[in-house]
Amino acid sequence: MTYVAPTEDMMFVLEELCGLDDISQLPGLEDATADMVGAILEEAGKFAGDVLAPLNAVGDQSGLGFSEGQVTTPEGWSAAYDTLVEMGWNAPTASPDHGGMGLPAVVNAAILEMFNGANTAFQLCPLLTQGAIEAINGYASDDLKALYLPKLVTGEWTGTMNLTEPQAGSDLAAIRSKAVPEGDHYRISGQKIYITYGEHDMAENIVHLVLARLPDAPAGVKGISLFIVPKFIPDAEGAPGTRNDLRCVSIEHKLGIHASPTCTMSYGDEGGAIGYLVGEPNTGLAYMFTMMNNARLGVGLQGVGISEAATQHAVRYAMDRVQGGTPEGAEATIMGHPDIRRMLGLMKARTEAARALAFRAARSLDFAHRSEDEETRAHHQRRVDLLIPVAKAWSTELSVQAASLGVQIHGGMGYIEETGAAQHLRDARITTIYEGTTGIQALDLVGRKIKRDNGTAARELIVDMKATAEALKVQSGGDADWAGLSAMVEEAAGIVSDLTDWLVEQNGTEPLSAAVNILETFGICLGAWVMGDAAMAASKRLADGRNTTHAKAKLSMVRFYASNVFPMAAALHAISKAGNGATLALTAADFDLAI
Amino acid sequence: MTYVAPTEDMMFVLEELCGLDDISQLPGLEDATADMVGAILEEAGKFAGDVLAPLNAVGDQSGLGFSEGQVTTPEGWSAAYDTLVEMGWNAPTASPDHGGMGLPAVVNAAILEMFNGANTAFQLCPLLTQGAIEAINGYASDDLKALYLPKLVTGEWTGTMNLTEPQAGSDLAAIRSKAVPEGDHYRISGQKIYITYGEHDMAENIVHLVLARLPDAPAGVKGISLFIVPKFIPDAEGAPGTRNDLRCVSIEHKLGIHASPTCTMSYGDEGGAIGYLVGEPNTGLAYMFTMMNNARLGVGLQGVGISEAATQHAVRYAMDRVQGGTPEGAEATIMGHPDIRRMLGLMKARTEAARALAFRAARSLDFAHRSEDEETRAHHQRRVDLLIPVAKAWSTELSVQAASLGVQIHGGMGYIEETGAAQHLRDARITTIYEGTTGIQALDLVGRKIKRDNGTAARELIVDMKATAEALKVQSGGDADWAGLSAMVEEAAGIVSDLTDWLVEQNGTEPLSAAVNILETFGICLGAWVMGDAAMAASKRLADGRNTTHAKAKLSMVRFYASNVFPMAAALHAISKAGNGATLALTAADFDLAI
Repeated sequence: MTYVAPTEDMMFVLEELCGLDDISQLPGLEDATADMVGAILEEAGKFAGDVLAPLNAVGDQSGLGFSEGQVTTPEGWSAAYDTLVEMGWNAPTASPDHGGMGLPAVVNAAILEMFNGANTAFQLCPLLTQGAIEAINGYASDDLKALYLPKLVTGEWTGTMNLTEPQAGSDLAAIRSKAVPEGDHYRISGQKIYITYGEHDMAENIVHLVLARLPDAPAGVKGISLFIVPKFIPDAEGAPGTRNDLRCVSIEHKLGIHASPTCTMSYGDEGGAIGYLVGEPNTGLAYMFTMMNNARLGVGLQGVGISEAATQHAVRYAMDRVQGGTPEGAEATIMGHPDIRRMLGLMKARTEAARALAFRAARSLDFAHRSEDEETRAHHQRRVDLLIPVAKAWSTELSVQAASLGVQIHGGMGYIEETGAAQHLRDARITTIYEGTTGIQALDLVGRKIKRDNGTAARELIVDMKATAEALKVQSGGDADWAGLSAMVEEAAGIVSDLTDWLVEQNGTEPLSAAVNILETFGICLGAWVMGDAAMAASKRLADGRNTTHAKAKLSMVRFYASNVFPMAAALHAISKAGNGATLALTAADFDLAI
Repeated sequence: MTYVAPTEDMMFVLEELCGLDDISQLPGLEDATADMVGAILEEAGKFAGDVLAPLNAVGDQSGLGFSEGQVTTPEGWSAAYDTLVEMGWNAPTASPDHGGMGLPAVVNAAILEMFNGANTAFQLCPLLTQGAIEAINGYASDDLKALYLPKLVTGEWTGTMNLTEPQAGSDLAAIRSKAVPEGDHYRISGQKIYITYGEHDMAENIVHLVLARLPDAPAGVKGISLFIVPKFIPDAEGAPGTRNDLRCVSIEHKLGIHASPTCTMSYGDEGGAIGYLVGEPNTGLAYMFTMMNNARLGVGLQGVGISEAATQHAVRYAMDRVQGGTPEGAEATIMGHPDIRRMLGLMKARTEAARALAFRAARSLDFAHRSEDEETRAHHQRRVDLLIPVAKAWSTELSVQAASLGVQIHGGMGYIEETGAAQHLRDARITTIYEGTTGIQALDLVGRKIKRDNGTAARELIVDMKATAEALKVQSGGDADWAGLSAMVEEAAGIVSDLTDWLVEQNGTEPLSAAVNILETFGICLGAWVMGDAAMAASKRLADGRNTTHAKAKLSMVRFYASNVFPMAAALHAISKAGNGATLALTAADFDLAI
């Protein structure tokens, strides 16, 4: 499968929409100049296109081997992983103190999108390791950090997140895995399901981060602790030593991401796996949530990456596939068909909007972590918290739609597996489910992120949206096209504002039934905001004669977004408020299969 | 996989929304009383649930064997096919003159939906045979009819449609297969792709209907003729005789419908397959189009069937899956979660709307074929022509959405193939492509069915929609709920009317870029119309104390449709008209992958 990293659009988003210049003023990010970042993305793009992308279809078709607890990855995967480790692409944001590159989160967003776009099943391994690094770096003792971080940062060892148990899907309160203290460590036992890269053959050790309960732990979510449970217990020199009491008992047969092992892990079948407590007892869930914030943004970027890959695939097909002819009798490709262009427009315009929104969330991560000003940090943390559920759920829902449109553009060929268009759909389909379903993200948005802070973060965002609308109005100088864009962003700000006010006032169950519709409305409205900013930046570049091909295409996509995507926001806005009565009135009897 | 035929809702639609009583007044349909039809659907439902459904996952998982031109169907399939033939379910509408049951098309619609819902990959075989019967019955000579129809009607022989060639997807003008006259028959040569059930082991003979060109044929679509090309040439007694010069050279590896062989057929490798001309030379495409009308409705009903099956699957899971608890501490199923109910509501309400609309199209088929009044026949033919692209494309697009929601409701389990939820999505994904993609249906709707007849058929439909709105207004007697439903249907009629007027006025390319949005708008608006009628019928049943459980659920679904589905029509209406400038302005440069 061919994949070309969209470096031009990524640099546009980084420089024009995420203020890369400002980010490189932050302490520790001084090297992140546009030139340096450009060079890094160039290299990352090569790795994505030359190393990861060629393995994508291979992994899908050959899948994984599993025998006696051992997982065998597809041919070429282990070698590609070695290259990833060698080139330092495993954890680009990790601190140089632990051997990392210390890149800004916003630059890592671009890298993550590329690697995911080229090969989602592969990139899940480093994505999980990045989460483990973050949890250990944030909450573990200095000894644990010193022992685990260097190996995880390079990728010599990989990491996993162990949350789900068979009886507890999204409901973590039901977790039953146990941890019994024994000297300086704990004995862990229990079964975990859906553990991504829980077992594989690409690294010499696997560091499992496991949620479990101490003997005296309170019931529910306030009695869950977080443990490091390594596959091989590091010896005194930090090399993989004794095999720990844990094993992969089976792997799942899935719709997609065939080469990513989804493991059922059994801990403590022979007396208890040795584990080490991370941070304080009974606060594991809070640690896991912090870690999940980044993982959720990572999955959102998977969505953007798959959307981009599916779009490229469809564009190539549409430019190549001859069908019918021109009125003059010449052969014509299906790119000439208005409905094909409409579908490609939906794919590309929404992908670009989702990219810009996800990168902006990553930008705020950088400010939240690194700004020297406390208020700035707090402001950006609120922004991150608000944007992440939208970036995660909207980008992933769009990736399913983009991949499905990609199949449609291929026609009958799209349904044939060899074409590769269907793989995007199968791979994308998990992204709206794992790391918290779209429903879970939506509850997070309307509950924790809007109602709980009384709409503060949302109103700060509305101020920014209105500023974009105002800038577009100034830009318009009476031109109807530009005035239309200003009106779009103005309307988007109004919708977000109205929904925020409505949510803050609600005391019943309406927000629960409205949540997903509100999240999608937010996605489309925030997409309008970033596209509005993109239009101004592209127009300036055109005027200056810089990157004009890209700038022209960007303006086409903004116009398409305004007239073909944004109008859906009004309908979803209406449903968000008026649809709840009918939804909440639905009863089990209405779905009785016996009638 | 469990499948329970929704006979209660089907009988509701047949009796209350399709006027089954009137249909049983038509010549030849006198036996189609409600009692008789009820008994038939009961039996068909048993066959679907007991025979077809248990083979659905088996077929998906084991797929097809292929070796030396022979296709092996999964275990149990051939026996199930024998049962289908034995019980007379192969071609329920076929005339008793040829051994058929002579059922109304509208009753067959219910049977088709059931069989497709239970096992889409299986039902494709009889669906294609039904198309072949129709083409031969409509256009072939009496000799050909006498030879082929009895065997096709019982299903002892199966039929296929051979249109597509590698260089000609949706563009049939590019067909190159040849037919050279030789005595009373022709020698056929050429390659055809995507031939459903082109080869299999369930019947003793396969009758291919093949589009090919005569030596002196004009170029383009006006030079295509239709031929019967049997796998085994019938001998004097009508038994399968000499093996014809045609073979299956490969089968496709597809995203879904794994047990339905999709064949590449090669004709005439050894000098030319013997074929027999159907009807007049050079008019094959017109014959094929008539035949496709029914096949398109059949695929629309596949969409409804898959939506129903996916909905049932999700409902069972939601009623069974315990997660979290009630405020009182009892265990609770996810059916209690508002967002799960919202998703199930979307699945069920849209499925019911799509069912009613497709059945109404089938009802008009009965009147168009059988009414003794010429004007009535013509009126209903126009109605059929108008509704079929909507029923085909809208129902199938909804089936992809329903199946995808079904996966989502299952959460992580939905992504595991063993659960079966993903199979619905993989199977559904072809339905928006074959028998004419959604784009092709949309061009048919806006071009042939609206612009070409100056909006006549659409305006007749608008009259019926307004009558429903008016009846709802009378029903309301001031009640806000009912007035809201009347307003919905009134608005739906207004939108259909405005789009019809707009289309009739257009002379440029706007209808081409607007087509799919218009089709979807029509779908939602016509769905509102049939749901409005359903509300009145359900309310009457409630008042009369008949089938009250179903009637209550129906009213819940209508209310849900009005507040959670219908509002999308306004947005799509807006995009249909305002989105074309931006779409038509998109150029290949806007999608240039080199920038």
